[in-house]
Amino acid sequence: MVSSAGSGASRYVVGVDFGTLSGRAVVVRVSDGEELGSAVSEYSHGVMDDRLDATGAALPPDWALQVPDDYRDVLRTAVPAAVKAAGIDPSDVIGIGTDFTACTMVPVLADGTPLCEVPQFKERPHAYVKLWKHHAAQPQADRINELARERGEPWLERYGGQISSEWEFAKGLQLFEEDPGVYDAMDHWIEAADWIIWQLCGTYVRNACTAGYKGIYQDGAYPTEDFLGALNPGFASFAEDKVAHEIGALGSRAGSLTEEAAKWTGLPAGIAVAVGNVDAHVTAPAAQAVEPGQMVAIMGTSTCHVVNGAELAQVPGMCGVVDGGIVDGLWGFEAGQSGVGDIFGWYVANQVPEEYSRAAEEAGIGLHDHLTRLAFAEPVGAHGLVALDWHSGNRSVLVNHELSGVVAGLTLQTRPEHVYRALLEATAFGTRVILEAFADSGAPVTEFIVAGGLLTNTELMQCYSDVLGLPVSTIASEQGPALGSAIHAAVAAGAYPDIRSASEAMGRVNRAVYTPDKERGQAYDALYREYVALHDYFGRGGNDVMKRLKAIRREALS
Amino acid sequence: MVSSAGSGASRYVVGVDFGTLSGRAVVVRVSDGEELGSAVSEYSHGVMDDRLDATGAALPPDWALQVPDDYRDVLRTAVPAAVKAAGIDPSDVIGIGTDFTACTMVPVLADGTPLCEVPQFKERPHAYVKLWKHHAAQPQADRINELARERGEPWLERYGGQISSEWEFAKGLQLFEEDPGVYDAMDHWIEAADWIIWQLCGTYVRNACTAGYKGIYQDGAYPTEDFLGALNPGFASFAEDKVAHEIGALGSRAGSLTEEAAKWTGLPAGIAVAVGNVDAHVTAPAAQAVEPGQMVAIMGTSTCHVVNGAELAQVPGMCGVVDGGIVDGLWGFEAGQSGVGDIFGWYVANQVPEEYSRAAEEAGIGLHDHLTRLAFAEPVGAHGLVALDWHSGNRSVLVNHELSGVVAGLTLQTRPEHVYRALLEATAFGTRVILEAFADSGAPVTEFIVAGGLLTNTELMQCYSDVLGLPVSTIASEQGPALGSAIHAAVAAGAYPDIRSASEAMGRVNRAVYTPDKERGQAYDALYREYVALHDYFGRGGNDVMKRLKAIRREALS
Repeated sequence: MVSSAGSGASRYVVGVDFGTLSGRAVVVRVSDGEELGSAVSEYSHGVMDDRLDATGAALPPDWALQVPDDYRDVLRTAVPAAVKAAGIDPSDVIGIGTDFTACTMVPVLADGTPLCEVPQFKERPHAYVKLWKHHAAQPQADRINELARERGEPWLERYGGQISSEWEFAKGLQLFEEDPGVYDAMDHWIEAADWIIWQLCGTYVRNACTAGYKGIYQDGAYPTEDFLGALNPGFASFAEDKVAHEIGALGSRAGSLTEEAAKWTGLPAGIAVAVGNVDAHVTAPAAQAVEPGQMVAIMGTSTCHVVNGAELAQVPGMCGVVDGGIVDGLWGFEAGQSGVGDIFGWYVANQVPEEYSRAAEEAGIGLHDHLTRLAFAEPVGAHGLVALDWHSGNRSVLVNHELSGVVAGLTLQTRPEHVYRALLEATAFGTRVILEAFADSGAPVTEFIVAGGLLTNTELMQCYSDVLGLPVSTIASEQGPALGSAIHAAVAAGAYPDIRSASEAMGRVNRAVYTPDKERGQAYDALYREYVALHDYFGRGGNDVMKRLKAIRREALS
Repeated sequence: MVSSAGSGASRYVVGVDFGTLSGRAVVVRVSDGEELGSAVSEYSHGVMDDRLDATGAALPPDWALQVPDDYRDVLRTAVPAAVKAAGIDPSDVIGIGTDFTACTMVPVLADGTPLCEVPQFKERPHAYVKLWKHHAAQPQADRINELARERGEPWLERYGGQISSEWEFAKGLQLFEEDPGVYDAMDHWIEAADWIIWQLCGTYVRNACTAGYKGIYQDGAYPTEDFLGALNPGFASFAEDKVAHEIGALGSRAGSLTEEAAKWTGLPAGIAVAVGNVDAHVTAPAAQAVEPGQMVAIMGTSTCHVVNGAELAQVPGMCGVVDGGIVDGLWGFEAGQSGVGDIFGWYVANQVPEEYSRAAEEAGIGLHDHLTRLAFAEPVGAHGLVALDWHSGNRSVLVNHELSGVVAGLTLQTRPEHVYRALLEATAFGTRVILEAFADSGAPVTEFIVAGGLLTNTELMQCYSDVLGLPVSTIASEQGPALGSAIHAAVAAGAYPDIRSASEAMGRVNRAVYTPDKERGQAYDALYREYVALHDYFGRGGNDVMKRLKAIRREALS
């Protein structure tokens, strides 16, 4: 499948994964996806969530800003370092691709200059990058959702019935209402995923992924002027003036590496720069999961599920469905669980006594491993517990962040490892609820492929396989997103005709590492029924105690 | 009120509290209840729950036996040691009273000899004392309850609708069915509370308290021959042959100290020996809680509630109501919470991380105190949690030991002290449910008086006062039961005309140490409503998940 190079020498691509605190560059061989070298660059400003570095002024609650030049630093340092670590000749690199956190937004001038780099705005918080976890636009998101429901806006069901405060329109409306000066000066309200591509090739192309999932771009249109004007009259032209722009398909070529970017990266000017992408979605081809029904779950502190479908389907509680949102030519579905590894981490930090830390230390293993070993030494159901994994709210399928966690079945015989296992199982049950929603909506999941840090917990993986009744495959790369970006670079460079063929050659997956055990599966079925009963009772209006407890808590602390 | 002594010298009584693992004797001044000296004697055989000491043979699950001579040892060692510690002249002691765990049963010959002391039976487990927590008669209790419900036996509602496996008839039926030889040789099936009195004064008198609460003695009768014969034909005459005997009112004189018991105890032969009693019930006069509506809560690992009423009332889920069951002339009501301090202890042992132990150590306080301080530094409801205190099942008012504990409202912000406080509050809410059941049944509780180890937690006491909306008084003795026994001894000796007057002179209580705060009370009301909603959902058939989880657990471990 590899296009032959004149010299017969190996050719390479660079994938760069822009995370929350750092960027990672990986050099990958085009022919087989071998990862030859990588390097990481931490953002020197990190996340500004309490004060603005430029002035020292305090930021309001729920803000999270970044400095865009930190992203350029990744190009200037991590990329050349990765090339050096790979020991290759930079002139053999034929393309570069990137993925980014999303929705992370940059207000820029017509030439792509971030407003925070314009002297007159550098002391204005709204001139900076609003990171994905900037949650201060919740009031705006609430208004968008309320109005969209009232008016029966057709795009709402493409997002499981809810637009997030993290996304382009909520953050844009906040900017418009809180700092009109910055808003007026801004020519484009642009995803960092696209801004970095602009920095690399001098061309602004919106990627189909964020445009769809975060930018409410559906069936070739954004929300109407009429709708936006009803939110706020001055906001009517927001989509047209600040957002709308040429859309690029994933894996297509956004442009060629500029002389300036060639100097930053040490790569040859003129090589292919792929259209931007998002960390979760770009991982699908890295895990060879580009066919309909192959779901990739990126399991870390939270879990993001991405899966392609041949047909459009409305899955209740999904995060979104976007035409070409994962792979061009298919409908890309996204769902999520708000808390997964975060919950396990919380439990270990807050609910496990000293003797367990000691025992883990003596065994020379981590506390998570120690608890996992103890917990899974017992048969399914021996702990007598069922938990709800909503410590961080519920994204799919309930889309309700006022929900919270539950543990039921506690007795004086309950040990710490019992609750730990119940929490692990609860996240598997939560995944099963999502998969059943997909199946019920006509978009069945046939294979479950795990990427992300939690795949190293083999007991957890087996538990997922048993609970889901599906084989569980695992990505065979430790840097899935960067590998995915490199795959997109290879396609953009013309080394492969499409993402599907590049994924087949360069993606890395261990297929069906875990297969479901029938007996354990049946035992989990019984616990799953209990999970679903509590899920529906607490999550579908049987008892809104969780919402009231949060209100009581806010009132008490106010 | 004190009868004058010829010499004008002080006179004393001895109270002896027979607990689960040891007996404690206290010497008390008759005139004012001053406690002058005490001593403890551990039972040398403790609790036999895995094997029989006499043979080394394993015991089945849920058995718990004791050796009656260990009780005599308390008379032989703790009583003289207490007298010595008090520094009094033994000849100034005018009476002795006792209280015991219940229902703790001894099979004896006509002369009071325990069958385990008869050589031919000493290797037979059924010849030994069945301690209160011998739970192996559950199948028999189930049959008793089922049959009583079927036949509409009138006494069933006096026990909140359920006879316990701990009580006389269930244990007696187990003995009859499992070891007919011992059953046939047994002349009396007798409470240890009464057996110890027999040892002291040579007379067998059944005390009104255990006869009523544990012996199903109501309105002058036991369950009928017809009923008992329907359980098992050979068991028809059980009540008549093995149980029925003269009943003695609490505080009356069972007899006079024998020469032999005088030798054991070092006390004068011929002094008054009070009718037997039970640890919880005997505490009421010690806490000056002998009027209708004054509830004493003995709060330790579990809580036992005792309160007098002028009229008979059927309180759903109470443990029992007995005429003269606490104070002669009034109806004594008993209720209970299966797990209280036990739950807090479980939590601290299993769910609190190292840094808390360290911090407590550095502060020079216990972990419970440390958590309490942290937890109650925040306003009511700030933790955002509600818990169900059913880790050990629910005695009152649901009478269901298949129930289990719940914590709801967990988030990634939840700290260990938050859950700890939610558990403390849950026990207060559980108490409020009981008090509301009493009020709804026409037996309102007007004062809440705490005895037992948990009264030292001042934040917990304030929480109970706020939640219950009642003043909380605390007993001013650290050995409430033994003081209560001494009060009974003083009445039996004629030093006071009745328990009421003796309680007034000798009882010790700090009245209304805690009074409810209106604002906190209203905040707790909101949490209490959530508690009640979950209580009824999980406890009254809305979702029998807890029962199913226990079944799943048993199946998994079988």
